[in-house]
Amino acid sequence: MTLRIIATGGTFDKHYNELNGVLGFADSHLPEVIARSRMTIPVELQVVSLLDSLDMQDADRRNVLAACQAAGEKQIVIVHGTDTMRETAEVLGAAMSDKTIVFTGAMIPYKFGSSDGLFNLGSALAFVQTLPNGVYIAMNGKCFNWNNVRKNKQTGMFEELG
Amino acid sequence: MTLRIIATGGTFDKHYNELNGVLGFADSHLPEVIARSRMTIPVELQVVSLLDSLDMQDADRRNVLAACQAAGEKQIVIVHGTDTMRETAEVLGAAMSDKTIVFTGAMIPYKFGSSDGLFNLGSALAFVQTLPNGVYIAMNGKCFNWNNVRKNKQTGMFEELG
Amino acid sequence: MTLRIIATGGTFDKHYNELNGVLGFADSHLPEVIARSRMTIPVELQVVSLLDSLDMQDADRRNVLAACQAAGEKQIVIVHGTDTMRETAEVLGAAMSDKTIVFTGAMIPYKFGSSDGLFNLGSALAFVQTLPNGVYIAMNGKCFNWNNVRKNKQTGMFEELG
Amino acid sequence: MTLRIIATGGTFDKHYNELNGVLGFADSHLPEVIARSRMTIPVELQVVSLLDSLDMQDADRRNVLAACQAAGEKQIVIVHGTDTMRETAEVLGAAMSDKTIVFTGAMIPYKFGSSDGLFNLGSALAFVQTLPNGVYIAMNGKCFNWNNVRKNKQTGMFEELG
Repeated sequence: MTLRIIATGGTFDKHYNELNGVLGFADSHLPEVIARSRMTIPVELQVVSLLDSLDMQDADRRNVLAACQAAGEKQIVIVHGTDTMRETAEVLGAAMSDKTIVFTGAMIPYKFGSSDGLFNLGSALAFVQTLPNGVYIAMNGKCFNWNNVRKNKQTGMFEELG
Repeated sequence: MTLRIIATGGTFDKHYNELNGVLGFADSHLPEVIARSRMTIPVELQVVSLLDSLDMQDADRRNVLAACQAAGEKQIVIVHGTDTMRETAEVLGAAMSDKTIVFTGAMIPYKFGSSDGLFNLGSALAFVQTLPNGVYIAMNGKCFNWNNVRKNKQTGMFEELG
Repeated sequence: MTLRIIATGGTFDKHYNELNGVLGFADSHLPEVIARSRMTIPVELQVVSLLDSLDMQDADRRNVLAACQAAGEKQIVIVHGTDTMRETAEVLGAAMSDKTIVFTGAMIPYKFGSSDGLFNLGSALAFVQTLPNGVYIAMNGKCFNWNNVRKNKQTGMFEELG
Repeated sequence: MTLRIIATGGTFDKHYNELNGVLGFADSHLPEVIARSRMTIPVELQVVSLLDSLDMQDADRRNVLAACQAAGEKQIVIVHGTDTMRETAEVLGAAMSDKTIVFTGAMIPYKFGSSDGLFNLGSALAFVQTLPNGVYIAMNGKCFNWNNVRKNKQTGMFEELG
């Protein structure tokens, strides 16, 4: 069995550009993160985009969907910005039913000492191995169905719908 | 629902004593780790011991068992040294059948920049929510049944029995 | 003898706001940095401002000057953004001749794992104890007179004037 | 002008061996540290030994002396364990008078998140550029003459002799 990790960008992968002081993107940190995790299950990493999720367009979400459809693996973790994670999860939730797909991300960039990214990735890689086919969002130790979750803008946390 | 995390010590919680240069134990790092993870599920932390797992005696393992039996929670993660993680898991595996208990730990102390501890804890907290009752070991993204796992001393990695 | 450290903001003290994803300012990190350095010389910390140095106005630079003039200490380190560090150093250089004042900062925020801030602060605190009265900029292990330095925008590094 | 950095081991360079849990030595971290510091002055790094300073013998100290005598640079920083830093400084202090040599080290290994090593190295590299010929110990922001310093075993701090 092999797992697929799809990188799309988001806070997890933000990079500090020291020449202009902007927090943007360079290379994905995921190769380093995967090495550090010492994953013993084979992992295939695919960088589909490196975008702030507020900048993602419909075409970007379709690219994520296409990557999931083309994947040989049945278990896929998608690292994504939290602001529109639910929107991309909706696109996949409506179209995919034969794989387990878990979205995750970070509130603090991985390269900050206090990042929650490594914790979230660890939990997503566990949820994806144990949950039935479907599309999920895993953040802060909790896993939600794609159609029963929203990001609370005040707290920054994900929560179930009313 | 509430999760219980039981600390027993191990590499995860090792502390560097700057006065004598010894890597031992002071307070558990788990309160800080739990805060950093931004867990939204309530977590009850219980420090049963702070020991190198090579120093654990039968009485220490029975204390871990007693803590699991006394716990009101049905889902328990145990942070434990890797060297005798399997031995303690055996004690619990033989005695507990009505809860989901997941052991985890770290190859590198949490306070080192390159620690795998946060990743392992994230995965353990996900496995414990999704697996049926039983006793498991979750390390490096993979989850093993307590009676089908060993630590490979050459590689430092956990693997299934032949 | 006591040293004074004046915080003005800059990349060194940038804080990641996880609710809106903006790299701005909250509390100064310098109390934590000073504790970590285990400085045995008494240090007086004064937060004059917490500004991106591109946002500093003439009045802000005059506040820094006033703080230096009012200080009882003869040795002052100023943590400042690199983009206009030279401009503030000019204001002080033209007005102060009875103290040793060393500007320093960081190319990468202190809270990033790879920050150069701690190194720069260590060097500035050493230069300030050993150089004669005057105003200096210490970055990346090198110390410049305030009137013979510029930031190279291409490399991000400070260098002597032609 | 070029600076020389001589590595001898010590807490600064301690490495955690994840296979046996021992804090010992592998490669020096100094190449990474020098890159992170963005030093603009050319630096020549020489690894003379990688030893806990409690394990250093007379021959090891003579090797450090020989390296200093053979160096083309007039300014040398020596990264050394704190426990016998003073003893090696004595060997050099008695024999060297034509160079500026500054010993430094760390209370916490560089690879720990909370290490003071980067701060100490920054200060040592500044002291070495500004102090007259002689042998010094720079720790925790303060610089001592080699013949007027001891490590206080209770506090772990360096202090002047009564």
